[in-house]
Amino acid sequence: MKQKPILLRHAAQLVTLQGTSAQPVTGTAMSTLHIIEDGAVWIEDGSIQMVDRDEVVTAFYRDRMQEAHVIDASGKVVTPGLIDPHTHLVFAGSRENEFEMRLAGKTYMEIMNAGGGIHNTTRATQAASEEDLYEEAYQRLNRFLQYGVTTLEAKSGYGLTLEHEMKQLHVAKRLQDTHPIDIVSTFMGAHAVPAEYKHDPDRFVDILVNEMIPEVAKSGLAQFNDVFCEHGVFTPEQSERILRAGMEHGLLPKIHADEIEPYQGAELAARLGAVSADHLLRASDEGIRQMAEKGVVAVLLPGTAFFLKAEAANGRKMIDAGVAVALSTDRNPGSSPSESMPFIMNLGCLTMGMTPAEVLVAATINAAHAIKQAHRVGSLEKGKVADLVVFDAPNYSYMQYNYGVNLVDTVIKAGKIVVQKGSLTHEVSVSPA
Amino acid sequence: MKQKPILLRHAAQLVTLQGTSAQPVTGTAMSTLHIIEDGAVWIEDGSIQMVDRDEVVTAFYRDRMQEAHVIDASGKVVTPGLIDPHTHLVFAGSRENEFEMRLAGKTYMEIMNAGGGIHNTTRATQAASEEDLYEEAYQRLNRFLQYGVTTLEAKSGYGLTLEHEMKQLHVAKRLQDTHPIDIVSTFMGAHAVPAEYKHDPDRFVDILVNEMIPEVAKSGLAQFNDVFCEHGVFTPEQSERILRAGMEHGLLPKIHADEIEPYQGAELAARLGAVSADHLLRASDEGIRQMAEKGVVAVLLPGTAFFLKAEAANGRKMIDAGVAVALSTDRNPGSSPSESMPFIMNLGCLTMGMTPAEVLVAATINAAHAIKQAHRVGSLEKGKVADLVVFDAPNYSYMQYNYGVNLVDTVIKAGKIVVQKGSLTHEVSVSPA
Ligand SMILES: [Zn+2]
Ligand SMILES: [Zn+2]
Repeated sequence: MKQKPILLRHAAQLVTLQGTSAQPVTGTAMSTLHIIEDGAVWIEDGSIQMVDRDEVVTAFYRDRMQEAHVIDASGKVVTPGLIDPHTHLVFAGSRENEFEMRLAGKTYMEIMNAGGGIHNTTRATQAASEEDLYEEAYQRLNRFLQYGVTTLEAKSGYGLTLEHEMKQLHVAKRLQDTHPIDIVSTFMGAHAVPAEYKHDPDRFVDILVNEMIPEVAKSGLAQFNDVFCEHGVFTPEQSERILRAGMEHGLLPKIHADEIEPYQGAELAARLGAVSADHLLRASDEGIRQMAEKGVVAVLLPGTAFFLKAEAANGRKMIDAGVAVALSTDRNPGSSPSESMPFIMNLGCLTMGMTPAEVLVAATINAAHAIKQAHRVGSLEKGKVADLVVFDAPNYSYMQYNYGVNLVDTVIKAGKIVVQKGSLTHEVSVSPA
Repeated sequence: MKQKPILLRHAAQLVTLQGTSAQPVTGTAMSTLHIIEDGAVWIEDGSIQMVDRDEVVTAFYRDRMQEAHVIDASGKVVTPGLIDPHTHLVFAGSRENEFEMRLAGKTYMEIMNAGGGIHNTTRATQAASEEDLYEEAYQRLNRFLQYGVTTLEAKSGYGLTLEHEMKQLHVAKRLQDTHPIDIVSTFMGAHAVPAEYKHDPDRFVDILVNEMIPEVAKSGLAQFNDVFCEHGVFTPEQSERILRAGMEHGLLPKIHADEIEPYQGAELAARLGAVSADHLLRASDEGIRQMAEKGVVAVLLPGTAFFLKAEAANGRKMIDAGVAVALSTDRNPGSSPSESMPFIMNLGCLTMGMTPAEVLVAATINAAHAIKQAHRVGSLEKGKVADLVVFDAPNYSYMQYNYGVNLVDTVIKAGKIVVQKGSLTHEVSVSPA
């Protein structure tokens, strides 16, 4: 059955971000939003047909207004659907017990030695059926949707064997096919060195390079290849080898860089022309300069710093240095168990020195660039996928000012209303069938 | 029409907090929760009739189960309704423009000199009609309810003249009469020194003591009297005079203490036997010791510190020193524009060193003690008002672990379901009639 057109009317502020699809937004352009007051959008066949002032749109569609479903956005802000460019979406179990231990003063190493940490999730994910992983992730996606996310990236990396990495990627594909949120997939076999290779990590790198990456690339289940480049995990040399192997097979490079120690991760990202470098809490000034020069997007994850009680990355400095900054939840069961991009935007302002305009750019079009989706989503322009969020806020600054709450009122995904008054509509299954 | 009884069944964790009504919870008792697994509650005539294991409750009410509305809480945590013991609920306008200025590096003094700060809100509140103040606050209360709050304290203090303070108190009374959330009212004429008394603040103290406090007390519209004891606002001597005047008229003392500078506020609270001392970021060790000795509740406001980018109060140290700690949003338009007690609890864990058990005690029964409501609410026990929250979390630690999101599924207020699947039910007017 053909979907009715949607006419969204009278937005107090329609934040279009128009003209940003070709290149990530950098510098002062990040704080100069294109805003239409009393704005309207005509949506049909899943995509945006017209974005303009209400009087212009309604004059143009005068003869067809009767057939449209009208959404009154007066007094509200309308933005592109939020985009989360860095999640570890598919996994089994939760680790609130480790969180309790950490709050009680236990160190990460003590928790690891008690059988915790990433290996905990790896064991659970390896043991889980594809069906169970799918159901758990589906619930997480429902929450993401209620917080305004319409596209997100999902990494494998809790399987660490070809079989279990492929299982995670299959689950992501099935979620892409069944859940309203669009999923972009990343292979991250290089998320940790499995215990059995602890004394010979290069052997595991060999397996990644010679066996896993070619198979994953052949399956077509991943678009990106990511590596955890960090002291004690993969060295810059190992990381480069892994990322170059992916590039040879058509997987675009991403990198978990300079999270815990300065480790030349930003420099490596620039040298490889990575699509993004993520975390960057300890990135060097020189690495940041090179990222700006090469157009590598910085995906910053202030929720992880908040949850680990660490100092956040210096988003302000990166923007001032000309780097395109994007924001993400880093959703994962160990260091960032949150699905709220609106809260991550709050943290962008309150812990990384960003402005309300900058965090909005970082959570929409720059996030789209970080996962190569800016041609489809991330701004409100004719021809793009109709992904929009209506926020219960009179202006975009208020979205950061009224902190810690979810102001998402309505979410439209590919032309369908999937969230209304903050609740999922019947377009979304509460639980997968 | 008589309300149907409610039978809440199969709670994974029913956090009762039983036996805590007589005294605030202190020390290690704050981390020792009384929990019933597979718990049930029978609710009738607005109050709690029975709290026990599911099999016990259903056996007892076997013959009446047909008439009850049943809520299945399996896999979920059930707690007493959350209580917010410190808000400046009734005011006009919002100050996101000042927030933008602050993010851009402007100091508080520069903002004040540009006409901002508390005087901005005072002007707007004085100019607003009672009707407008009521409608704005009503919307805020709806959001509080969606975040699990069933009782809150509301302070005047943006009127600063008898007429306008009484206007705020009248609005709070009308909200108490019409909105599901229970409101406890505090007079806070001593929130700031009005500009016209800047050079003779003692004259304003005279007016408070001789004119405003007696009138407010006579009206019966406030139960507490609060003062902003801070360098540049009211001195400890002025604060003591104001609070003693309230006590003579039956208004119980509360105090904004040691927020910005150490100022002997905690000591004053102990000396007067105040019900609570609030903020306490810079309280002295001796002041904390005295508060513990005298049973003054510490109402901590980590959202305010978060929003002002300050270091939070040391909740851990206060609990270890034997002080009863409560948590609050401090909802106000300048330094804490949030209605989310769940997020304040997250901050309690992540910025004040508290545990998941402690923040739950602090946001329920200790918050009730901080506003003298522990005989009515704050724990799940036979005879208490039926205020309960069902959280979409398998255990109470998960509520802090899955940070930055609202896990409130169902809220029951005085035996009525006011929030269902996160949305307000028809028991609540979206906007006041
Ligand atoms: Zn990650
Ligand atoms: Zn206050």
